[in-house]
Amino acid sequence: MRSIMDRRNFLKAMGAGTLALAAPGCMDGAGPLTGRRTRKQPNFVIIFCDDLGYGDLGCFGHPTIRTPNLDKMAAEGQRWTNFYVGASVCTPSRAALLTGRLPIRSGMCSDRRRVLFPDSAGGLPQDEITIPEALRPQGYATACIGKWHLGHLPQYLPTNNGFDYYFGIPYSNDMDRVGGEGRNAFWKPKIEYWNVPLMRNEHIIERPANQNTITKRYTEEAVRFIIKNRHRPFFLYLAHNLPHVPLFVSDKFRDKSLRGLYGDVVEEIDSGVGLILKALRRAGLADNTFVVFTSDNGPWLTFNEHGGSAGLLREGKGCTFEGGMREPTIFWWPRKIKPGLVSDMGATMDLFTTILTLAGAEVPSDRVIDGLDLSPVMFGAGPSPREVMFYYRGAQLYAARKGPYKAHLITKPAYGKGKAVHHDPPLLYHLGHDPSEKHDISEQNPEIIADILQEIVRHLEKLEPGEDQLAKRIKKA
Amino acid sequence: MRSIMDRRNFLKAMGAGTLALAAPGCMDGAGPLTGRRTRKQPNFVIIFCDDLGYGDLGCFGHPTIRTPNLDKMAAEGQRWTNFYVGASVCTPSRAALLTGRLPIRSGMCSDRRRVLFPDSAGGLPQDEITIPEALRPQGYATACIGKWHLGHLPQYLPTNNGFDYYFGIPYSNDMDRVGGEGRNAFWKPKIEYWNVPLMRNEHIIERPANQNTITKRYTEEAVRFIIKNRHRPFFLYLAHNLPHVPLFVSDKFRDKSLRGLYGDVVEEIDSGVGLILKALRRAGLADNTFVVFTSDNGPWLTFNEHGGSAGLLREGKGCTFEGGMREPTIFWWPRKIKPGLVSDMGATMDLFTTILTLAGAEVPSDRVIDGLDLSPVMFGAGPSPREVMFYYRGAQLYAARKGPYKAHLITKPAYGKGKAVHHDPPLLYHLGHDPSEKHDISEQNPEIIADILQEIVRHLEKLEPGEDQLAKRIKKA
Repeated sequence: MRSIMDRRNFLKAMGAGTLALAAPGCMDGAGPLTGRRTRKQPNFVIIFCDDLGYGDLGCFGHPTIRTPNLDKMAAEGQRWTNFYVGASVCTPSRAALLTGRLPIRSGMCSDRRRVLFPDSAGGLPQDEITIPEALRPQGYATACIGKWHLGHLPQYLPTNNGFDYYFGIPYSNDMDRVGGEGRNAFWKPKIEYWNVPLMRNEHIIERPANQNTITKRYTEEAVRFIIKNRHRPFFLYLAHNLPHVPLFVSDKFRDKSLRGLYGDVVEEIDSGVGLILKALRRAGLADNTFVVFTSDNGPWLTFNEHGGSAGLLREGKGCTFEGGMREPTIFWWPRKIKPGLVSDMGATMDLFTTILTLAGAEVPSDRVIDGLDLSPVMFGAGPSPREVMFYYRGAQLYAARKGPYKAHLITKPAYGKGKAVHHDPPLLYHLGHDPSEKHDISEQNPEIIADILQEIVRHLEKLEPGEDQLAKRIKKA
Repeated sequence: MRSIMDRRNFLKAMGAGTLALAAPGCMDGAGPLTGRRTRKQPNFVIIFCDDLGYGDLGCFGHPTIRTPNLDKMAAEGQRWTNFYVGASVCTPSRAALLTGRLPIRSGMCSDRRRVLFPDSAGGLPQDEITIPEALRPQGYATACIGKWHLGHLPQYLPTNNGFDYYFGIPYSNDMDRVGGEGRNAFWKPKIEYWNVPLMRNEHIIERPANQNTITKRYTEEAVRFIIKNRHRPFFLYLAHNLPHVPLFVSDKFRDKSLRGLYGDVVEEIDSGVGLILKALRRAGLADNTFVVFTSDNGPWLTFNEHGGSAGLLREGKGCTFEGGMREPTIFWWPRKIKPGLVSDMGATMDLFTTILTLAGAEVPSDRVIDGLDLSPVMFGAGPSPREVMFYYRGAQLYAARKGPYKAHLITKPAYGKGKAVHHDPPLLYHLGHDPSEKHDISEQNPEIIADILQEIVRHLEKLEPGEDQLAKRIKKA
């Protein structure tokens, strides 16, 4: 069944040509984004962590990491326990969030390189529409603070992708490595080992970035942006570089957590969340601001105690088991969102559609948008419209979930831990009964597998993969 | 290092004879329990589950089991994330809770049989002092509702161990098996497969017990006891038979949980907790009642989806990894307990000492009591006095924890999953940094291992194992 992941062969094998498919929504023609203002437009804040695991918050069951601010945020809002990212590594996951599309469509995933690197020449294609690009015509102030990782050549920077303002490290904090010995550099990391730039808009303002204070400075920048824009609608995308290795933390939080350095880092992020929510309250904006907290992918398990925990979920970053792609997610919007635990499915791509809809912006109709509007769940009006989730690793579809059932066509452990195994029939797990993906029930449920395979056929039939952006490298002189 | 677990050889090997040890507290002489009433004696309710895993409650991170009542109880009270049981199987764990002593002292653990069975002739020795026996002289009404499992011959029943009243199944709900085929009996359990008796005081009132309604009836009995005794201090020990396999649930909760039958069962227990707390509030007793929710040991993993989850903890029931012995624990006492997350160590044995102290009863001084008074943590007055925890499997000491460090002398997976492995030097884990016991740090920390081994020496030196109660069988005619 090796060929299953080649789209054409797979469709052929499934006899997809004979399926009568509904005309896909992407064929409606390219409608321009029309500006339409609602009377009181809500603000949006997305707080996005890097490599935070499903089990790494107090309110998601961690025994020693203390996250009182996030726990309170969850108690006041919604704790989503089945919330997915579009990929289990940085670059494609971020592309999915900002475009509402699976990264295979934008070419922001690849079988040749997992993410963008400092020598990469690619980035988010200009014709992709990002959340801030869609919100700007609605009068929104927009800022990206933190890790970008969607291209660092000038044309790909946040300020060329809908953001009025950018402050941050344009890719992962473990890149531009210039010092330290092997993995030992991570166990006792020093600023100077990683020559990563810190940018303001299009300019490098510090190199190497002082990563010890980076979380603190991101939070301060976020609060400053909120206060500055308190009289107009805004969209703030705060993408922390941490707790991705190498772990750095400011003095106030160092050696404070029972969980060690990793815990220190998460607790500093938690504290920052508290400051941001406090700023929103003080500015009188809490009731008009939708805040989401989540992360880009699961924990980087091979870094031992410097990586996080996916809790009861299987595996972590880099793979398509739940630990790689399900994230601890909190929605907060006092007096608007119905508080409670949400076990319906959601995905970062849905934030695109939900935010645009809430802002009164039109969701693009000239392309396939994978995001769905989660506002019925937020306001207690109905269940989540998301019934299906596709799990890609690189440019290959490894698994699909429909309702509580997940079929794995291919499994491969997280980085460096084993080879890909193709499954025919696919492995089948009931994620409600068996969230840890332990008990294969494929044998007893051929009809469920057939149904999921049909979903996969429908998905792959309409799929138009974008040009691989991750394989492009800067040509050496 | 096989001999390490033989107490005498171990002490010899460690050169313990040369250690100058403080005189143990158990040598103070046998003081009688003196009756001393405080003005307003608090009530005590212990709700004890069977085989519930660390990760099986919403507030401990489960994604699909809904426990709104326990989540609320935790939000109003304390969520203990490092709370232990005295053994990772039923009988010894229950003996530890009720006597405040490691089961090795009372003889309620054994290398020959894991627990008591219907053909057992042993039980909790008469000279052990249980919580209700200590509270009765203080004027307390006492009831045991639910699973007993400390001996079912007349002399061992709850009403001969300090309880005024008993209602329940005297041992595990998977005993007295008379029907069904192999493990299939568990996947679709029927009442008639298990001929377990339901008792009121010393009399069997139903056989087989209708297990479908057993959780509901236990809750109703508990509420009835609370209301009946609202004008006098009481101690209620509610020990559910579930979610131990075979899983049974009443119609109202059947097929309701996203987690399947196991979830249905836990959600019925959660609902019962809600009814009990509501009864306490309605009776005006909430501010004067200390309620504890916990379980006897970790999840029975070999029962697949019919077993629970230890969340991010390693392994489950039957073993001395954290998943076997750390339980999701909630303390509740409105307006008295300082709400929050407690990551200090505590143990069920400490409930003995804490409850007796709070009731104004004297803690027995004629024997070693392993329990410690946790009230400083409850009332925000200081840290937990518990710094050390010993992990027994049967009558053998497998591991010890001191502060965040845990040393494994022997490891053995949960039931039927592998053989014992002796470790010399012991495996060492930092449970704060590494709650999942993944990264052995023994090589880098010989001094910490030496310190824990000294604790073990001190412990074993004073240890007087009780006569093995679990090996005794009823003689056949």
